[in-house]
Amino acid sequence: MIENEADVVVVGAGLAGLSAARVLAEAGQDIVVLEARDRVGGRTCSVIEEDGRLVEYGGQWVGPTQDRMLELIEQFGLDTFTQYADGDNLQLVDGKLLRYHGAVPTGDPLIAADLMDAMVDLTSAALEVDTAEPWRHPRATELDGLTVESWIRQQPYCEGAKVWLRAMTRALFPAEPGEISLLHALFYISSGGGLEKMIGTINSAQETRITHGSMQVSERLAELLGDSIRLGCPVSRIEYTDSGVTVHHDGGITRARRAVVALAPTLAGRIRYSPPMPGLRDQLTQRIFMGSSVKISVAYATPFWREDGLSGHMMGDNTLVQVTFDQTHPDRPEGVLVCFVDSNSARRALAMTAEERRAHVIEDLVTYFGEKARHPVNVHEKLWMEEEWSRGCYTGILSPGTWSTLGQVLRTPVGPIHWAGTEYATVWSGYMDGAVRSGETTAAAILAEAGR
Amino acid sequence: MIENEADVVVVGAGLAGLSAARVLAEAGQDIVVLEARDRVGGRTCSVIEEDGRLVEYGGQWVGPTQDRMLELIEQFGLDTFTQYADGDNLQLVDGKLLRYHGAVPTGDPLIAADLMDAMVDLTSAALEVDTAEPWRHPRATELDGLTVESWIRQQPYCEGAKVWLRAMTRALFPAEPGEISLLHALFYISSGGGLEKMIGTINSAQETRITHGSMQVSERLAELLGDSIRLGCPVSRIEYTDSGVTVHHDGGITRARRAVVALAPTLAGRIRYSPPMPGLRDQLTQRIFMGSSVKISVAYATPFWREDGLSGHMMGDNTLVQVTFDQTHPDRPEGVLVCFVDSNSARRALAMTAEERRAHVIEDLVTYFGEKARHPVNVHEKLWMEEEWSRGCYTGILSPGTWSTLGQVLRTPVGPIHWAGTEYATVWSGYMDGAVRSGETTAAAILAEAGR
Repeated sequence: MIENEADVVVVGAGLAGLSAARVLAEAGQDIVVLEARDRVGGRTCSVIEEDGRLVEYGGQWVGPTQDRMLELIEQFGLDTFTQYADGDNLQLVDGKLLRYHGAVPTGDPLIAADLMDAMVDLTSAALEVDTAEPWRHPRATELDGLTVESWIRQQPYCEGAKVWLRAMTRALFPAEPGEISLLHALFYISSGGGLEKMIGTINSAQETRITHGSMQVSERLAELLGDSIRLGCPVSRIEYTDSGVTVHHDGGITRARRAVVALAPTLAGRIRYSPPMPGLRDQLTQRIFMGSSVKISVAYATPFWREDGLSGHMMGDNTLVQVTFDQTHPDRPEGVLVCFVDSNSARRALAMTAEERRAHVIEDLVTYFGEKARHPVNVHEKLWMEEEWSRGCYTGILSPGTWSTLGQVLRTPVGPIHWAGTEYATVWSGYMDGAVRSGETTAAAILAEAGR
Repeated sequence: MIENEADVVVVGAGLAGLSAARVLAEAGQDIVVLEARDRVGGRTCSVIEEDGRLVEYGGQWVGPTQDRMLELIEQFGLDTFTQYADGDNLQLVDGKLLRYHGAVPTGDPLIAADLMDAMVDLTSAALEVDTAEPWRHPRATELDGLTVESWIRQQPYCEGAKVWLRAMTRALFPAEPGEISLLHALFYISSGGGLEKMIGTINSAQETRITHGSMQVSERLAELLGDSIRLGCPVSRIEYTDSGVTVHHDGGITRARRAVVALAPTLAGRIRYSPPMPGLRDQLTQRIFMGSSVKISVAYATPFWREDGLSGHMMGDNTLVQVTFDQTHPDRPEGVLVCFVDSNSARRALAMTAEERRAHVIEDLVTYFGEKARHPVNVHEKLWMEEEWSRGCYTGILSPGTWSTLGQVLRTPVGPIHWAGTEYATVWSGYMDGAVRSGETTAAAILAEAGR
């Protein structure tokens, strides 16, 4: 058991916490970072598995306008490569495999027109939402009281287009269209700069991979912070006054003048605070739930789909696997498909045994990519909902009615306790870039306060 | 610091926990009950204040079909009296005070017809929901993906009726119509036996008061349990295996073969479990938020409204105070109005100082009951959202999309850990009666297991 002191204690060594800590440390603040896990990186998790392959279990892509992540990659001199996207994408419509190009599943031309309209409609509505203050939208209450599902039902698009709108919603958040308020969806789309930029590959959010793993960014940030990072120290309790905090964790007690709690809001809400959090803050964290996703990496001897003119990217509407991408590593011979099992499919997948899940996933891959998909050489999976210190992914989602009535307390410090995490970001919220931005913004606010 | 052992450890000494403990103790099980507060009773809280008056800060009414509460009252020989309901109720429509009778604000006859239709529609739809398994409703996914707000918008009722439907929703849950899934609303209405029974006074859920306070029921249950109840022992951590639990709390460590966690689900989700809760259970508790309500008791020298032919009951649609009842005690001369500030109004009220809140409340009461309401002799308030061990009231609400995808794990034990609380009840969920029923049902399940 240690007892130590710092100017600022940061709870959570994901990208947000590490980014906050780095800015504070560079400004001369004495920092302690407390991390529950035995590693840094939070919802990024890059592991070299027994077969020598790098498996990206968590967040993995960066793309244009994700400037803070791109700058960190550049600054740390990390190698990158471009997501494989040659050849055709696949979707299944009425039991028939269709090929298409680009971000939107447009294999059926009748559906395609409506789907493109919907994307334009959603994106232009989103750009009217100020991500710093979504509750100020003139129709905030109305938009926040409707789910994405009820919006879809009200639209004039053909039923086929509605099916794919739902599928895209499940992949993007990941949650059911009936769980997400329209205002939250528009906030999220606004923060990412529009739907097409978010779901696409080239010139979009899935464009670039970090060759030796996205977790490298956190590891390099951690190197800058040296021994101020304490792993294996989940925080159970934070006592605070106007002048400081006393943080109780599995490794001991840390005192500081300020704290940055850099956890997903729902997890931040599980810490016991003394005095208790204000009612509005607590009601807010009760209303932010984590998305549901299972990420499965399926390796084959070779990327056989490339010979068939396929990109390895598919979107499903009622299969367990909802999205795949070619995850083949440039340094390795194996062909890899990374499979996302999202939203309610992820919940169904959690009720299965690992063997059942694997059998379902392989069956889905055979449906899309043919019999050659039946015999993988290796399968690795990550059940983010089972992870004690994440409890879901990719991000926290404000439940219907929450932005419009409680949103204004989301980013407000409580006494000496500040907040950071991708959920708090105004740009690329839910993404690695948003996490970095949020951490840096919070650090700047603390420095401005300290300088007063 | 104590270390003790029991057959069953019950976490939470509200009506659910105490009811479970009582059944288990009567069956010969050795029980320890751990309570975070320095009192029993949970979301009931009856206090004799400095002026000698009993103030009911929490749940207070019972009515027909709330059989378990009625039986306990009878068994403990508690005095009761009937809610005062003589005279006219009040509502404000377009700035004009209207008088009406009965549960539904029908002061405007054009609005009344639509409102009665809506109540019949909702109640008959609700009775199609099996409260034990709402996810089995043939249209569960659709109903769960729509909010009450979007349902209201789709209906043919006049705008005036829609205003009052929203007001009733805010008072009943209490949450905004845009926060509540239609499936959850129907579950809730079904569990209470229909809307009119839930919002009415005579022959309904607000019919009967317990003369010396509803908390008496918990206190009498606690007397039966003697020194097995430990107050001031919030639980931080539960370690469990198939054969038992080790519960870490502020008072020490309690070991038992089984646990009943009798807390609102969102609070149950804040305990640290080892091993961690299964992913589906955790995703569920992330999606159950507590309602928002402030309860304010305003005492006057006499119940002056009675002389004006008024019942003391009003419903507001856009005032801070949304509902009042005559809370005058049969043993006392003062006239008391109990004021409910619900849903988003409660959140707005939390952002005010106590003085501002009081001024707003008095102004609202003057609007409805005239200038005589301007000078109370005393005001007492309870901000349930600020209560560390409740974090809102009256009950937990499953967010849109949750019943249909995660509802089936709500009442399922996890290893030796069972759940109880009014949120788990199939009859009168959200009410004191539901809490008792849930506790007794969980105890019976444990006894059945233990008897195997």
